[in-house]
Amino acid sequence: MKFSTLFTKTKKDIAKTDSVNAELLIRGGFVDQLSAGVYTYLPLGLRVLRKIENIIRDEMNKAGGQELLMPAMHPKWNWQQTGRWDSLDVLFKVVGQLSGDEMALGPTHEEVITPLASKFMFSYKDLPKYVYQIQDKFRDEARPKSGLLRTREFLMKDLYSFHTDEKDLDKYYTVMEEAYSNIFASCGIGKETVLTYASGGSFSKYSHEYQTICETGEDTIYLCAKCNVAVNKEIITEQKTCPECGNKALTEKKAIEVGNIFKLKDKFSKAFGFKYTGKDNKEKYVEMGCYGIGLGRVLATIVEVSHDDRGIIWPESVAPYDVHLVDINGTKKETKEIHKKLTEAGLEVLWDDREESAGVKLSDADLLGIPERIVVSSKTIKAGKIELKKRDSDKEELLSLADYLKRK
Amino acid sequence: MKFSTLFTKTKKDIAKTDSVNAELLIRGGFVDQLSAGVYTYLPLGLRVLRKIENIIRDEMNKAGGQELLMPAMHPKWNWQQTGRWDSLDVLFKVVGQLSGDEMALGPTHEEVITPLASKFMFSYKDLPKYVYQIQDKFRDEARPKSGLLRTREFLMKDLYSFHTDEKDLDKYYTVMEEAYSNIFASCGIGKETVLTYASGGSFSKYSHEYQTICETGEDTIYLCAKCNVAVNKEIITEQKTCPECGNKALTEKKAIEVGNIFKLKDKFSKAFGFKYTGKDNKEKYVEMGCYGIGLGRVLATIVEVSHDDRGIIWPESVAPYDVHLVDINGTKKETKEIHKKLTEAGLEVLWDDREESAGVKLSDADLLGIPERIVVSSKTIKAGKIELKKRDSDKEELLSLADYLKRK
Repeated sequence: MKFSTLFTKTKKDIAKTDSVNAELLIRGGFVDQLSAGVYTYLPLGLRVLRKIENIIRDEMNKAGGQELLMPAMHPKWNWQQTGRWDSLDVLFKVVGQLSGDEMALGPTHEEVITPLASKFMFSYKDLPKYVYQIQDKFRDEARPKSGLLRTREFLMKDLYSFHTDEKDLDKYYTVMEEAYSNIFASCGIGKETVLTYASGGSFSKYSHEYQTICETGEDTIYLCAKCNVAVNKEIITEQKTCPECGNKALTEKKAIEVGNIFKLKDKFSKAFGFKYTGKDNKEKYVEMGCYGIGLGRVLATIVEVSHDDRGIIWPESVAPYDVHLVDINGTKKETKEIHKKLTEAGLEVLWDDREESAGVKLSDADLLGIPERIVVSSKTIKAGKIELKKRDSDKEELLSLADYLKRK
Repeated sequence: MKFSTLFTKTKKDIAKTDSVNAELLIRGGFVDQLSAGVYTYLPLGLRVLRKIENIIRDEMNKAGGQELLMPAMHPKWNWQQTGRWDSLDVLFKVVGQLSGDEMALGPTHEEVITPLASKFMFSYKDLPKYVYQIQDKFRDEARPKSGLLRTREFLMKDLYSFHTDEKDLDKYYTVMEEAYSNIFASCGIGKETVLTYASGGSFSKYSHEYQTICETGEDTIYLCAKCNVAVNKEIITEQKTCPECGNKALTEKKAIEVGNIFKLKDKFSKAFGFKYTGKDNKEKYVEMGCYGIGLGRVLATIVEVSHDDRGIIWPESVAPYDVHLVDINGTKKETKEIHKKLTEAGLEVLWDDREESAGVKLSDADLLGIPERIVVSSKTIKAGKIELKKRDSDKEELLSLADYLKRK
């Protein structure tokens, strides 16, 4: 992709934002803010989002998940069955102007997946089953904040699991724990992301959050350095020790939730009368679990933990491009040839072909945060080399294009 | 994929539907109806939808489109600028309960893309540009109907183009005409889909629909057999002849709109004050075009034109799987081996491994409509062969697995 043909331009000055992620993502042309808590993913941002999406999809498929796609618009009836039509304050409500139909915009999908699953599962032979979607959600946040971390509209992966009994649910819960670890590791925030006990006492095994530790986090957690698990601020009064090892020396940290896993048990199957016939020919309620990850939150979290004062530092796995190619001092002809060879080698290349100064081009390369920068200048051409710099390093290296491609 | 582990089951009896597409798609477990005009894509249906999506994406990329993703929730302000907040009767409106913010759910995105594009385009050097998204849309239909053809929530591809002048817009319009022809051909409805003049007289070159001719269509069009173009019922009184060749013998046909292309000219750039500086240093309004395709409509249209009284007949390009493998008469062990070899050869295989009668399995294969059915029975094993039947033929063929794989 040539920079000059990109839909977006980088911006030096933008309106004040409330977070590092919003500032860098807007300045780089990754996202645009349409209104409070509502964002457009621009071409560069969508490339990152799709890579995160594919990492998540792969892990869900490995864990036996079958992908489907539920609608955002739900009938009032479904939300009345669980009482959440009235009790859930973040539920957006819509009325059809001609039909008079009352509908909700889904902030989550238990109210849809439970009656849907009951159309296909009748016997213990039909269980367990795991389905997920990557889909647009809505939350009526009074004050959206922190850029893409707390928004009114957001893409979420939500997987729902269906089981004969709690033991089987427990087993799958650990499968999902592993899948989530893999996802955060692949997205480059594995080290910073910890399993966090979201509820205390005897309930502590039913609900976990994944919190990513970073200075700008909006939540407070208490971390056990031994086990690398944490507990939420909300439950620290009842749970003063590490729930895994009993360690009492927990450290206070700032952290943004990026995912959560819940044992719903029979809460929703009871609300919808969703039963199956067991081996013993008796009817029982289906046990359910649900497992969410906000894609925009993961993207914003990566920016929060991986940037410097010049811009974003994307991990390779989610970077919009592999290589940021820059021509300076009138080297367009030679750079065109290098661009061709890089692309033929299967690399995703953003070529900054603009008629801008070297200073502008190099500072935009830092802002965009693509992992490797290759500069072609009259100096490098004279030496028969290219100049390589990794975004997370300050060292520049002169090497031949052939040697560079050998490393790939 | 083993049929026994699928999230869905086929259904013999379902509630009465208003169309062939809804009946077959629901019975086969491709979609589920949540409420009037609101559907879930189940795993089988989502596989078809993704293939249609990828066909469309490839053509948009070939035509220079850059993909982005705009939100569904739009501020009132944007829709007030064009007057459509009050005039568009299908606009769903939402109010934030705590913030009091009034918002619309986008049925189209001119109101968002126009001010967005104006942030990045200033000079004739920045034009032309083409951006598109594949995104969820909402229409407050009083009476949704015809299955997935007229719904309240639907996935749509909408591309927007930006030009210095009408001549350049005209040029790109023909590029999109070709892209659309390619898309409908790839989806197996190329022969049945005709370019339809949606408006008459001097306006006739500004707006076209793509209509697919089928008996159950909800629109009436008048087709010119010579040119293979049509005119809409709405404009037949003013345009009694073929707009291409003047032919007066037009044939009345039933047809569902699957796509549309519009020259917006400067309607929206004027509403948002979106100007660029020309070569002559003068400011001018940007000329715009917009080009839509409803993904669910394409899917439903394929079913409408390609089915028989036993079920769906998917074109290969969009089929949920390539091969429907059926074991009968206790041949599971041998079928497992065949399944392995088919999968290793890169084929997408649905293996009906259920403990059901041959009759049930074969009739479900017809309902699901996967292009090729392979039966493994005691008879075929004895002969050292497999039994192949194409869904669109009545002929069965005995051949060795090796010979079958050679054809792939």
